[in-house]
Amino acid sequence: MRWSESFIPTLRNDPVDAVAVSHRLMLRAGMIRQVGAGSYAYLPLGTRALNNVVRIVREEMDRVGALEVLLPALWPAELLEQTGRLEAFGQDLISFLDRHGRPHVLAPTHEELATRIVRDDVRSYRQLPLILYQIQTKFRDEPRPRSGVLRTREFIMKDAYSFSADEAGLEECYGRMCGAYRRILERCGLTFLAVEAEPGAMGGEVSHEFMVPADAGEDAFVQCTAPGDVAGAGRAGCGYAANVERAAVPPPPEPAPLGYEPHLREVHTPGQTTIEHVSRFLNVRPEQMIKTIVYVADGKPVAALVRGDHDVNEAKLRRHLGAASLALAPPAAIERATGAPVGFSGPVGLKGVERIVDRAVACLQDGIAGANKADAHVTGVVPGRDFPLGRVADIRYVTSDDKCCRCGGRMRLVKGIEVGHVFKLGTRYSEALGAAFLDSDGRRKPFVMGCYGIGINRILAALAESVADANGIAWPPAVAPYEVLVMPLDMSQQAVVAGAQSAHDALQEAGLEVLLDDRDERPGVKFHDAELIGLPVRVVVGKGYLRSGNLEVQVRRSGSRTEVPAARVAEAVREALAALSVHPPVAVLPPVR
Amino acid sequence: MRWSESFIPTLRNDPVDAVAVSHRLMLRAGMIRQVGAGSYAYLPLGTRALNNVVRIVREEMDRVGALEVLLPALWPAELLEQTGRLEAFGQDLISFLDRHGRPHVLAPTHEELATRIVRDDVRSYRQLPLILYQIQTKFRDEPRPRSGVLRTREFIMKDAYSFSADEAGLEECYGRMCGAYRRILERCGLTFLAVEAEPGAMGGEVSHEFMVPADAGEDAFVQCTAPGDVAGAGRAGCGYAANVERAAVPPPPEPAPLGYEPHLREVHTPGQTTIEHVSRFLNVRPEQMIKTIVYVADGKPVAALVRGDHDVNEAKLRRHLGAASLALAPPAAIERATGAPVGFSGPVGLKGVERIVDRAVACLQDGIAGANKADAHVTGVVPGRDFPLGRVADIRYVTSDDKCCRCGGRMRLVKGIEVGHVFKLGTRYSEALGAAFLDSDGRRKPFVMGCYGIGINRILAALAESVADANGIAWPPAVAPYEVLVMPLDMSQQAVVAGAQSAHDALQEAGLEVLLDDRDERPGVKFHDAELIGLPVRVVVGKGYLRSGNLEVQVRRSGSRTEVPAARVAEAVREALAALSVHPPVAVLPPVR
Repeated sequence: MRWSESFIPTLRNDPVDAVAVSHRLMLRAGMIRQVGAGSYAYLPLGTRALNNVVRIVREEMDRVGALEVLLPALWPAELLEQTGRLEAFGQDLISFLDRHGRPHVLAPTHEELATRIVRDDVRSYRQLPLILYQIQTKFRDEPRPRSGVLRTREFIMKDAYSFSADEAGLEECYGRMCGAYRRILERCGLTFLAVEAEPGAMGGEVSHEFMVPADAGEDAFVQCTAPGDVAGAGRAGCGYAANVERAAVPPPPEPAPLGYEPHLREVHTPGQTTIEHVSRFLNVRPEQMIKTIVYVADGKPVAALVRGDHDVNEAKLRRHLGAASLALAPPAAIERATGAPVGFSGPVGLKGVERIVDRAVACLQDGIAGANKADAHVTGVVPGRDFPLGRVADIRYVTSDDKCCRCGGRMRLVKGIEVGHVFKLGTRYSEALGAAFLDSDGRRKPFVMGCYGIGINRILAALAESVADANGIAWPPAVAPYEVLVMPLDMSQQAVVAGAQSAHDALQEAGLEVLLDDRDERPGVKFHDAELIGLPVRVVVGKGYLRSGNLEVQVRRSGSRTEVPAARVAEAVREALAALSVHPPVAVLPPVR
Repeated sequence: MRWSESFIPTLRNDPVDAVAVSHRLMLRAGMIRQVGAGSYAYLPLGTRALNNVVRIVREEMDRVGALEVLLPALWPAELLEQTGRLEAFGQDLISFLDRHGRPHVLAPTHEELATRIVRDDVRSYRQLPLILYQIQTKFRDEPRPRSGVLRTREFIMKDAYSFSADEAGLEECYGRMCGAYRRILERCGLTFLAVEAEPGAMGGEVSHEFMVPADAGEDAFVQCTAPGDVAGAGRAGCGYAANVERAAVPPPPEPAPLGYEPHLREVHTPGQTTIEHVSRFLNVRPEQMIKTIVYVADGKPVAALVRGDHDVNEAKLRRHLGAASLALAPPAAIERATGAPVGFSGPVGLKGVERIVDRAVACLQDGIAGANKADAHVTGVVPGRDFPLGRVADIRYVTSDDKCCRCGGRMRLVKGIEVGHVFKLGTRYSEALGAAFLDSDGRRKPFVMGCYGIGINRILAALAESVADANGIAWPPAVAPYEVLVMPLDMSQQAVVAGAQSAHDALQEAGLEVLLDDRDERPGVKFHDAELIGLPVRVVVGKGYLRSGNLEVQVRRSGSRTEVPAARVAEAVREALAALSVHPPVAVLPPVR
C-alpha cells in the first residue's frame, strides 16, 4: 500500500482532552477519531490493527474447538427479564420501544440467548461439551466513558459460552478457554496476569480476569510478592493475585492484652461526622475507630462495621449476606434505623438492625464509635462486650498493608486494564431458562455453564499503553497495521524512488504486509511519522543506497540499524520480525483454578 | 471438523411460518434460528457461510483500493439532523435517550459520519480520490420484517463512501466499485443484473441496484427483451433494465381520431367510489377512466392524474415536483380541496389544486372522471378541453404491457432480491456538512461523493433462493460452510472409520475445508442431512471402499458420482470444486452509466 493512496492523517501536536497514552498516540497516529462521548471511528491503520486482533482471537478459539456463531444484538426485553438481569444491568442497558411499542434492548452480553439456543437444540449428554463463541459489537450506556478506546459505549467483544454435563466438564472447558486466552494475549504481545475476580452481575462463585498492568488501567489488583518457594507449595512464589474487588484479607493477628479494662463513655463531638474529623477532634488514630455504614439489603437495614482506616467492599458484603440487592441507605432510613442523624451511627445500643462485623473490628480492644445520638460518640468500646458480635466476616477492601491471604507474604497493589474475564456460571442461567439435557443416567439435568469474554478494542488499547514510548506506539508484528515501512528519503532522486519500489515489491512478494511512504516530504517528517505509527521494521532507502546499493533495516522498538544489500531485504526484514515476535516476559502467572 | 463436535441441528420437517425457500432450508439445515421478529441467530454453518461472503467482499474492496474503516453505529441524533435525514428515515430509525437524556440513534447508513471524517482530515485534491468502506452491523426498525434473513432488523452491510474532486472522479470511482460488485457477486456464485434504480432518501440523481432474479424477491424490475442489435446500438439487445420504482415509460402513441365530439355529461354514481366499481357500474373499461389522487406536497395539495388501469409512482411524482415531502392527502384535506367526499375527485372544475397529468391521461379522448360532487362522475371528458393540461409528465408505474423506453422492444417484469445499491450522491452531503477541499486551481470545492452498499446476509439469502432444490441448498464452493463432506456409511466397520479419517486428513492437508460426518447414524439419515446442508462435494466411504479401496466422489449439484482410489481423493475433490466454481451464466447485463 502506498501512503499517498491510504488515509493516514497523522497529527503534529497532542490533541487536547486526550490523557491516556493510548488515546493520545492512537489519535496522533491517525488510527482513530472521536465521534461522540465514548464513541470512536477506526481509520485504516486502526482498522487493520483491530482486524489482526480479531484474526488471532478467531484462530485461537477455533484451535480449542469453540464454534463460531453470530447472535443478534437487538433483543426483545423479555429475554433479560426471565433471569432478572433487566434490573441488574439498570442504566447501563440501552433500551427503546420499537415502532409497535414493544420494549427492546441492545444486549450487553449474551448468556440468555446462547442458553435458549442450546436449550432448544441440544438434547443429550452425547452432544456435550459445547462451546459457542461470537465476535460481535456490544453496546453499553457507560456513565463515564473515558481514556479513548479503553472504555467506550460501543465495542467489539469476543464472547463465548460453554455448556457441560457436570462440574468436571465445566472445569475442562474453563481450562481450555483460559489456555486459549493466554495464547491470544501472548500472540498479541501483551504482558498480562490472570487474577481472581468478582463475578458481579454475571453470577457464579468464581471468575478470573486477565489483566494488563498499566497506569492508565481503571482496575486494581493485589499480587503476592513472595519471592521463592513458599510454605512448601513446590513452586516459585505463592502466585496469588486478585482484583481488589475480590481479594481476600487474611485474619488479623491475635492482639496483645491491653493491661486495663476500657470504660465505655459518651463524648460530645459537635458536628464531627467523618472519621477524619472525629479522629482529629478526639486525637485518636483512624485504626481505633469503628466505621458504621448502614445499607439496605433486600429491603432490610444492615449495619456494616469496618475499621476507620478500612473501606467496605460491597461485593464481599453482598456475597456474605446472600443479598440480591444492596445499596447505601438513604439519610432518612439511617435516621430511622439509628435514631441519629447521618455521621453518628454506631454498633452500641443499635436495635433492630443486623450487624455484620469485619474481623479487624471484632478484635479491637478499645474502640471509638458513633453513639446513635446527634453530636455524640462513645469511646472505650469493646466489641463483644458492648455489642453482640453476631456475624463476623471479611467484608472490607484489601490494602497494600495486608499480607497475602494464601502465604502471608507481602502484597503489592497494581493498576491494570482488564482485557478478558472468564466466569464459572454453573446452572444459574440454565435453571432460570429451563435448559436441560438427558444425561447418561437417563435423568434430565441443567447444563453447567461457563462464559468467557475478551475485549478486542481493549486489547488494542492495552497494547498501546504497554508498548508506547515518547514518540509513538511500537506495535508488535502480530498486531501492527503493516509489518514493514519502506521509506525513500529523497523523492526527487529517480534511483531512490525506483529502489524503494523494488524493495516494496520484494517484501510484498515475500508475503509481508508493506506500507510505502511515497510522500514528497522531508526526511524529518517521514521519520517523525514513522515513529508515530510505529510499524515494527522499516527499510530506509537513502544516500547509502545511491552509493552502495544497500538498504538500511531499522527496528522501531530497539532503534537498531543494519545495512543490507537490496537483494537480501526480505530475508533481513523477516529475521528482524521474528526476533520481535518472541513472547513478552510473562508476569508471575497464578494458576487458574 | 467432526460433525459430532460441531453444532448442526438439522430439522426433519419444514418449520411452520417459513415461506421463503431460503428461510425454510436455512432453518432446516441448522444454519440459523429465529430469535424474534426480523432477528436471527447464525449457528456454526451459517456463520461460516457468512464469513466466506465477508472475506470475498473484503478482498474485492481491497483490490480496487478502497480503505477499510470501522465507524460506530451509535450516533448523537444531531449528526442526522444536519442533513434532514432524522425526518427522512422516520420510524425506520431506532432512537433512544441515553442516561443523560441526550437523543441518540443507531445509524442505518453512514454518509454523514464518513463525510465529517473526511472533512476534518482531507485538505487537498492531492489526497483524492478516497474510498472508505466498512463491514458493519446496521439496525433498522423494519415495519414488516419477513422471509427469514432476507429482510431483518439487524444485518451486516458493507457500505462504502467515495470522495472525488469532480464529476469525472466520481464516475471513475463509481465504475471501480461497480466492477468490484460484479466480481463479488460472481465469486459468490450469483446470477445477477445491474438495474437503474430510484435513489430515494439517499439523494442524488442516479443509482443502480444489483438484483438477483428470484420469486421470493420483494423488488420488481423490468428488463428489455429485445433479442438482437437494436437501433444500430452496436450490441446485442438493448440492455435496458430498471426497478419499477424508476423505470421510464415511453410516450404513448398518437391516438387515432375519434370521429365524434364527446359531450361532457354528469352521471349519477351512488356509492361508486373505486375504479373497479365505477367501470362496472357504467360499463366502461378502466383504461377510459381518469384516476385522480390528491397528495400533499410540501404542505400544498396536488392532484395526480393517471389512467384507471395505471398507478401513481410517487418517486416519479416527487422528483417531478421537486418536493421534499409527499404524502397521500387525508380524507378531510381531500374534501376541502375537491368539495366532495373521497372517491369522487376529478380534474374538471377543480380549483386551487395544481394538476400533474400523466401522458397517458393527456391523450385520452373520451374519459370518465369524478365530478367533485358526492355520488357523481362526469363522462365525455376531453383533457385540454374540459380542464387545462398544465404539467404533463411520466408519473406512473411501468407495466409489463409497456414498451422499452430506450428501444421500443418488449419488456418483461421480473421479481428480484436487491443485494447491492450504488448511488451517485454528488455534493448533497458535502455541502450540507461544509466538507470541502482545496482544488488544483486554488479554490475550495465540496467533495463529489458516491456511496455503495452491499448486504452480506442478503447475498447469503439470495444465493440460497437461487441454488436450492427440493432437498436443500446446493452451496457454491466459495460460500459453502465447508467445501467437502466425508461420509463413512457404516460406523461399526473399523476399516470404514479409519478410511474416512484418512480421507479427512488428506483433504485437510490439501488445504480444503472438510467436515467429517462421524455420527453413528443410518446412511439414509446421513444422505438426507448431506443434501440439506448442501456442501458442494462429498466423499462417500462405503462398501466399495472395503472391496476395492475406492472412495466415491459425489457432486451435490449435479448428483454425479465418480469412484477414485483413496490416494487420489484430494486431487479428485479439487477438480470437482474447480468445475463447480465456473462463474454462473450472467443475465443480460446493461452497462452501468
